[in-house]
Amino acid sequence: MFEAPYLLFLGDAPDGLAAKMAQGIYDWRPDAAAGQLRMDGCKADLGIRDMTVQEAVEAGVKTLVIGVVNRGGIISESWTSVLVEALEAGLDVASGLHNLLRDEPALVEAAEKSGCTLHDVRIPTVKYPIASGKKRTGKRCLAVGTDCSVGKMYTAIALDREMKKQGMQSTFRATGQTGILIEGNGVPLDAVIADFMAGSIEWLTPDNDADHWDIIEGQGSLFHASYSGVTMALIHGGQPDALILCHEPTRETMRGLPDYTLPSLAQLRDTALPLAQWVNPDCKVAAISVNTQHMSEEEALAYLDDVEKTMGIPTVDPFRQGAGRLVEALACI
Amino acid sequence: MFEAPYLLFLGDAPDGLAAKMAQGIYDWRPDAAAGQLRMDGCKADLGIRDMTVQEAVEAGVKTLVIGVVNRGGIISESWTSVLVEALEAGLDVASGLHNLLRDEPALVEAAEKSGCTLHDVRIPTVKYPIASGKKRTGKRCLAVGTDCSVGKMYTAIALDREMKKQGMQSTFRATGQTGILIEGNGVPLDAVIADFMAGSIEWLTPDNDADHWDIIEGQGSLFHASYSGVTMALIHGGQPDALILCHEPTRETMRGLPDYTLPSLAQLRDTALPLAQWVNPDCKVAAISVNTQHMSEEEALAYLDDVEKTMGIPTVDPFRQGAGRLVEALACI
Repeated sequence: MFEAPYLLFLGDAPDGLAAKMAQGIYDWRPDAAAGQLRMDGCKADLGIRDMTVQEAVEAGVKTLVIGVVNRGGIISESWTSVLVEALEAGLDVASGLHNLLRDEPALVEAAEKSGCTLHDVRIPTVKYPIASGKKRTGKRCLAVGTDCSVGKMYTAIALDREMKKQGMQSTFRATGQTGILIEGNGVPLDAVIADFMAGSIEWLTPDNDADHWDIIEGQGSLFHASYSGVTMALIHGGQPDALILCHEPTRETMRGLPDYTLPSLAQLRDTALPLAQWVNPDCKVAAISVNTQHMSEEEALAYLDDVEKTMGIPTVDPFRQGAGRLVEALACI
Repeated sequence: MFEAPYLLFLGDAPDGLAAKMAQGIYDWRPDAAAGQLRMDGCKADLGIRDMTVQEAVEAGVKTLVIGVVNRGGIISESWTSVLVEALEAGLDVASGLHNLLRDEPALVEAAEKSGCTLHDVRIPTVKYPIASGKKRTGKRCLAVGTDCSVGKMYTAIALDREMKKQGMQSTFRATGQTGILIEGNGVPLDAVIADFMAGSIEWLTPDNDADHWDIIEGQGSLFHASYSGVTMALIHGGQPDALILCHEPTRETMRGLPDYTLPSLAQLRDTALPLAQWVNPDCKVAAISVNTQHMSEEEALAYLDDVEKTMGIPTVDPFRQGAGRLVEALACI
C-alpha cells in the first residue's frame, strides 16, 4: 500500500500503549522501521534511533507512519506542523486514525505542493456484503480478550508465523490498522458500517482448503462497553473453530473505562464460547495467551502454570515462550 | 424532517415484512399516510387507498416515503422510474435505504429540475462519541428479540404511548429508519461506524430525571449472525434497567438466514441479561412481548399463558392486549 522504510511517528503519546501501532510494526517488521520521531512530552519509546524529519530523509525513509492513537482520534496542531514538515521534505504520510489526513486542509495543501501522498488506511476500500452465516470450508481461529490491548494481535501474528514455520497452511487476517500496516491488507473493522461488520469478516475469511487456518485478529472485548459490538461481529462473522483467550493480568481497570474492572478468564470463556457455538457448534476454547510483560519471569511462569491448572487448557505467553504450544493446541482441533 | 402527508411506496415487496417501514408509519401515524403505491408483483398491502403519483399530488401529498427494504438495499431501475415520476410531479422523496438517493444520478437530476428534495434519513447527522460506560441517571428499557423483525419497535412505541397515557415520563428512542420516520429523530444505528455504535446510544439516552423512562428500540438479535454486533452495542450503550424479550413463535428460521432456527426465550434471557448486567448490575428481564399475529385468538392466549407460567414474568401481545401489563412490569423495577 505504501513504501518502506518508515519513520514511525510517536507524537506526544501519553504512554506506551498509545503507541501500540508503532510497536506492532516494529515488532513484526523491524527491517522496515528506520527510526522513530518523538515530540516533547512523548512517553513512548521503541528503543530505536530517534530521527528528525531531515535525518529520516537522509536515511532513505519513504513514508512517515503515524504509529500513535489519541482517544477520539484528533490530529492536533502540534502534530500537523510535524506532518507538514515531513510532506514538504518529500515523505508520504500514512495513518490509521479516525480523523482522516485528507480532511486536514494544511496536510492536503502540503501534499499537493510536494507531490507526496496521504494514505488513510482506515477507510474501507471494499463494499462488504451482509453476513450470510453460511458454514465455510477451512478452519478459523479467533483471538478474544478480557479487554482491549491485551495482546490479541500479537498472539494471532505469532501463531500464524509459527504455523508457517512448521509447514502448516495459515493466513493472518488483520482487522485493525496496525495489523493492516503489517500484513498489507485486511479489514479496518472499527471503521466499517454497523450492518456490514459481520459480513466484512466473512469476506475476509472465505472458503479455503480443509487444512488451512485463518488466524483472525480480535478487536475490543465482549466486556468492553465501548467496543463489544465489534467483538460480537467478529465472533459471528468469523465462525471460529477455535478461540484463544487473551489476558493481561496486571491490568486493574478496562482500557479507557476507569469504572470497570476486567472479567475473569472463566467469565470470558463462558460468555464467548456459547456465542461462537451458535454459528459453529464445534467451536472450542483451544488455549490461553497471557501478556506477562509487566511480571518477572518467575511471577509469569507461576501465573501461567496456575491458570493452566485452573482452566485446564494450554496457557502461554507467546512473547516469552513462543507460540509452539498454541499451534499444538490448534492441531488437536 | 420532511412534510406530511405521505405516499407510502411499497415497490415490489416480496412479502409484508419487507414493507415493515411503511406498516410502522401507517400503524403509528395513520393520519399522515394518505395512500400507498404498489408496483406489479407487490405482495405487501397496508389496506389503504392505492394511489398513482398523480392521484397523490391531487390528494395533497407532499412526500413519497420509501417504505420497503430490499436485502442489500438496491434501488432497481423499475423503482427509479417511479421515483423520477414522483419528483417530476413535485413530490419530495424520503428513504432509509443503504443505497442513498443522492447517489442515483437520475434522481438527483430529477430533483434538481423540479426543485424537490431527496431525504436520506439513514445518514447519521451527528458526530457520535465513543461510549464511556458511565452510569447515567433516569431509567432505560431495551427491547431485545429472538430474531430481527419480531416486534421490538412495535413493543417499544406501544409501551411509550401507554406510559404517556398513564401520566408517566417516557420517551421513545428510535434506532432504526422506521422509528426515526415515526418519531422525527433518533439514531440510524445500522449505518453508524462500528467504533461509535455504543456511543451513539449513550448520546441518544442521556442523563434524565430519576423517574423518566427511555424506551429504546431494539435492533437485530444477539442470535442473528448478520447483526448481532449491533444488538450488543445497544445493550452496552443503552445500559438498560429493564429488558423486554420479544418473540414471534411461528417463525421457523431466522430472518434472512435459512440455516438457523430461532433461540428459545430462555436462551435469549440467559444470554442477554448477564451482558446487560455487566454495565448495569441492577438490570432485570421485566416482561415478554410476543407477536401473535399469525395465531388465532385462542392459540395466542394459550401460548401467552404457557410462556408466562414457564418464564415466570408477564407475557403479553401488546397488539392484541395493549401495553398495560408491560407498563406495570416496568413500574415494579
